[in-house]
Amino acid sequence: MTSNGPIILPEPTLRRLPWYLAHVEILRSRNIDFVSTTQISRALNVDASQIAKDLSFLNLKGKTRIGYEVDALFHTLSDFLGFKTLHKAYVFGAGSLGKALMHDSGLSNYGLDIIAGFDINPDKVNTSVGNVPIYHIDTLSEVMHANPATIAILTVPVEAAQDTADIAIGEGIRAIWNFTPYRVKVAEGIVMTNTSIYAHLALIYNRLNADL
Amino acid sequence: MTSNGPIILPEPTLRRLPWYLAHVEILRSRNIDFVSTTQISRALNVDASQIAKDLSFLNLKGKTRIGYEVDALFHTLSDFLGFKTLHKAYVFGAGSLGKALMHDSGLSNYGLDIIAGFDINPDKVNTSVGNVPIYHIDTLSEVMHANPATIAILTVPVEAAQDTADIAIGEGIRAIWNFTPYRVKVAEGIVMTNTSIYAHLALIYNRLNADL
Repeated sequence: MTSNGPIILPEPTLRRLPWYLAHVEILRSRNIDFVSTTQISRALNVDASQIAKDLSFLNLKGKTRIGYEVDALFHTLSDFLGFKTLHKAYVFGAGSLGKALMHDSGLSNYGLDIIAGFDINPDKVNTSVGNVPIYHIDTLSEVMHANPATIAILTVPVEAAQDTADIAIGEGIRAIWNFTPYRVKVAEGIVMTNTSIYAHLALIYNRLNADL
Repeated sequence: MTSNGPIILPEPTLRRLPWYLAHVEILRSRNIDFVSTTQISRALNVDASQIAKDLSFLNLKGKTRIGYEVDALFHTLSDFLGFKTLHKAYVFGAGSLGKALMHDSGLSNYGLDIIAGFDINPDKVNTSVGNVPIYHIDTLSEVMHANPATIAILTVPVEAAQDTADIAIGEGIRAIWNFTPYRVKVAEGIVMTNTSIYAHLALIYNRLNADL
């Protein structure tokens, strides 16, 4: 069990906590020692009572008038969010986006350790991107045995998304981070998160367009 | 005015349309000619009447019993979502994530044309990532004049997020795609979209942990 313990946080709280962390990082870089919920509230446009409630999940309580200690808030937040522990992950699909994620070493600052990639293209298999080796998906079972991961990052073509997720879960993967626009279905107990970059692009284009 | 016209779509519709597109792409790869809302509904677990309603924004109507023509649906959806038109974008912050996005040439299949990067680090300025040149942010005005973009992709450190957005908007950028965990504030009329990869990571870690 890691330090954040088995508390299931509501999704909206989990969305807001990284905002607080980002704000506290800025205060730290400015050598500010204390911050109140009122100050965070003003900076982020989130209700102060909501902030206090979110932070109470972390057993953090501010002191009257002084507020929270910035340094403690920074460490507790990043620990609680899981950013201080490395979580092993595989990337499935060493295409353009998959390779980009393998190149993004900054993710390790947020607790993500990409240790292998998988593909079926013979031109890609047995090469590497940065320090990340790419294997054929048929060898998943062996790699999982030798150097197991819990998270599968899905960047395969849409038509391969469901099958790839099924194979990964069959080998013991417990969380899918889905970057494909396909709505992958998983059994209960498997963690499933979608990062819908194409939907975000569509939103940007539509709003830009509507604005003309 | 582009082909999708000035229709402001509801966000939930814009989130679902890429799912339909992904599904239709799979049908196309299987040489399937027609699809009904009932079939899409079963595949994606979205209410059939909701699908019909979403597609009616595109002036698409299925035929009784036969449904929608897969090929027409594919082209209309990707055109409507703006994926067939290239939209010029700059990346601000040529760090790990910024460079990864410049490497991801696949984004151009979704209408995103990254034409330049900006940074302040002398080691990065005047280099390039893939085919994308990196300039000093002080030269933004000139670059904007020579080769203008409408979209700013924000991958700078949190403490620089607001200032960078302000500078970009000051030079004529009309949409911010924010990858930082900082809640950037923009004036009305500026398009603002957040892709919260760190919040998604926190969600994955929390759910994995709670599951132990």
